[in-house]
Amino acid sequence: MSAFTLMQQKKKIVFFGDSITQAGVGPKGYITRFGEKLGQKNLKDQYELIGAGIGGNKAYDLYLRMEDDVLSKNPDIVVIWVGVNDVWHKRTSGTGTDADKFEKFYNAIIKKLQAKNIKVYVCTPAAIGEKTDYSNELDGDLNQYSKLIRSIAQKNNCELIDLREAFLKYNLVNNKENKESGILTTDRVHLNDKGNDFVADEMMKVMIK
Amino acid sequence: MSAFTLMQQKKKIVFFGDSITQAGVGPKGYITRFGEKLGQKNLKDQYELIGAGIGGNKAYDLYLRMEDDVLSKNPDIVVIWVGVNDVWHKRTSGTGTDADKFEKFYNAIIKKLQAKNIKVYVCTPAAIGEKTDYSNELDGDLNQYSKLIRSIAQKNNCELIDLREAFLKYNLVNNKENKESGILTTDRVHLNDKGNDFVADEMMKVMIK
Amino acid sequence: MSAFTLMQQKKKIVFFGDSITQAGVGPKGYITRFGEKLGQKNLKDQYELIGAGIGGNKAYDLYLRMEDDVLSKNPDIVVIWVGVNDVWHKRTSGTGTDADKFEKFYNAIIKKLQAKNIKVYVCTPAAIGEKTDYSNELDGDLNQYSKLIRSIAQKNNCELIDLREAFLKYNLVNNKENKESGILTTDRVHLNDKGNDFVADEMMKVMIK
Amino acid sequence: MSAFTLMQQKKKIVFFGDSITQAGVGPKGYITRFGEKLGQKNLKDQYELIGAGIGGNKAYDLYLRMEDDVLSKNPDIVVIWVGVNDVWHKRTSGTGTDADKFEKFYNAIIKKLQAKNIKVYVCTPAAIGEKTDYSNELDGDLNQYSKLIRSIAQKNNCELIDLREAFLKYNLVNNKENKESGILTTDRVHLNDKGNDFVADEMMKVMIK
Repeated sequence: MSAFTLMQQKKKIVFFGDSITQAGVGPKGYITRFGEKLGQKNLKDQYELIGAGIGGNKAYDLYLRMEDDVLSKNPDIVVIWVGVNDVWHKRTSGTGTDADKFEKFYNAIIKKLQAKNIKVYVCTPAAIGEKTDYSNELDGDLNQYSKLIRSIAQKNNCELIDLREAFLKYNLVNNKENKESGILTTDRVHLNDKGNDFVADEMMKVMIK
Repeated sequence: MSAFTLMQQKKKIVFFGDSITQAGVGPKGYITRFGEKLGQKNLKDQYELIGAGIGGNKAYDLYLRMEDDVLSKNPDIVVIWVGVNDVWHKRTSGTGTDADKFEKFYNAIIKKLQAKNIKVYVCTPAAIGEKTDYSNELDGDLNQYSKLIRSIAQKNNCELIDLREAFLKYNLVNNKENKESGILTTDRVHLNDKGNDFVADEMMKVMIK
Repeated sequence: MSAFTLMQQKKKIVFFGDSITQAGVGPKGYITRFGEKLGQKNLKDQYELIGAGIGGNKAYDLYLRMEDDVLSKNPDIVVIWVGVNDVWHKRTSGTGTDADKFEKFYNAIIKKLQAKNIKVYVCTPAAIGEKTDYSNELDGDLNQYSKLIRSIAQKNNCELIDLREAFLKYNLVNNKENKESGILTTDRVHLNDKGNDFVADEMMKVMIK
Repeated sequence: MSAFTLMQQKKKIVFFGDSITQAGVGPKGYITRFGEKLGQKNLKDQYELIGAGIGGNKAYDLYLRMEDDVLSKNPDIVVIWVGVNDVWHKRTSGTGTDADKFEKFYNAIIKKLQAKNIKVYVCTPAAIGEKTDYSNELDGDLNQYSKLIRSIAQKNNCELIDLREAFLKYNLVNNKENKESGILTTDRVHLNDKGNDFVADEMMKVMIK
């Protein structure tokens, strides 16, 4: 098989999300780490990785820009990771997303992607605070939105990357002092180096078998 | 000219909005009144009026359902009236719409309509409270969103139906007691009979010349 | 000992709180049930129970009215049960209580009571939603305020009636379907008959030994 | 009359408020300016000025600390200036003050001061944004709380320093570009040098006749 043909066969993955994904393409970002891990498995030539994260994005923002930022790239695979701002902005600016609307927009995004035969992975929002005793201010709402996403995944036959569950499990072992940040995040939400590496691993587990 | 041809020439107007528009198709609703006023001018046969209002809708909800509820009807004219919930829900449920997002979705709706050669009218949100001394709780924000809509209208060459200005003018004359509802609304937001009639008149002034 | 003397020795308990306590003096309310349970132990003559609950009250409201509604009664014992509105109103009306202010007012109330040699019991807020998987919207914040109260109790040498812990334990056994209300509450917050009985029992356990 | 006696006769004024008043004792703060203006009228020896402002304070915070920070100073005169945070924090942190509670705490503060024969002046909250077309986000609510304060002043026979009215009047003349800050404030709320000077003048007009 020629090099040209091989290139044609590269699978294009778009990572579609908010500021966490925007930072994911940085030198130590989770998308960059994902690429390095593919390299370690000699799979680097089989995938092209594209970051499509914009800070502050909620479910409906993804819907608005999916033509321009995702479909226009003709991806084979899209990883959707959104939800933190939908919950967080309720408190910080009165502009979060109602649960029923969140579900509607999320479903609409998946339907449009699947209609183009794109394989969709969905992620639960990892954390707004890393305390493990369920006393992070927005834990209740974030757990509810995570449940919604798990149910959306099931109904739409999408594979799930359950970052919320994974983060909590990790913190139960590694955050004995019940700190609100500094384990996998810098500021309760955004990933530190360890967090980026951890997310890349969690995604690999589900996506690259 | 044959009856068939006449029917073909009927202009289809879709009123696209929230609960106020949802109620607009009721027996005394503003869309119904608009139709009656067309009748008084012997223009009834020239227009078909379609209500497309859903309670609780914000700018991004209109964007999500515009294919199904507006474009599928092949309208000649669309009247967009949205904004109350984008402001109001900030206070009541933490799920209003940021000003910059409001503008983005509003522009996206207009662009899609205009791309189909649909004539677009835009309305400012009339009221959340009818007091005339600018002491309705959300007056500041509602004035700001109204200014945004006026600027959106201008940039997109849409005609403006400035209900906010019209309501304030009317109340300055007819609400000397500075009451928060009961003049044009039942509950500070939704229209009473007089309000429905008034809105139909304001729309007629701009749309039917 | 004469009847007169006995009456003099009656210990006066004021239950100081919000709408849950306001309902507590109703025919099946938790204060009424507390009295009945005292009767069953033949302790009825030793206590006088006074309800001092007002709907919508937060920590600072208790502070404002403690002279009129509590100190003026010369109580021997005061049970403080507050916190639900301090958390809840953040979401419903933007008028909850910051955690640091909550602590300040709570401490100020206790100090004033203890300065009069009044024995103070403090309760954690039981629930805003009875789901047991930490997905009630305000679970995170309510857990945080409960932790604050536990710490306040310890620092001020007050006995703790940990209703939040008790409600969760009860629901883990009796709410297998993970319902958000109907087990101990009617509406996620206010007590049904079982809830009132349960609270009276929990208070008895700590207060009447 | 001896110097000693003169000192005894100095009238003590406590300025009681939030961060704006906290900054008021700075080198160019409004309290400092007030003192300088007294000096220009040769009245400096007749008054002692005390700043009692703490950042983030709302009406109920003033009530909590009035014993320690105001009554303990035995003032002759107290100037209360509060309200911005009661409104603002609704939006920024969900912890503003309900209008009815605001009124209750405000009245309670005045009653306690007047019971000690202290003369009370009350101020309306000047601004959260300096735009003059009523499109500052919180104008409606701030106008409503200003109306409450005017009514509280009247009911309690307090003199009113109507900073909100004065700021708007000044901006109508001096803020033709409808800017949201930079005229009397640095950041929509806190005073710049001109603002501090202006406030001192407005207070002088009412207090020093």
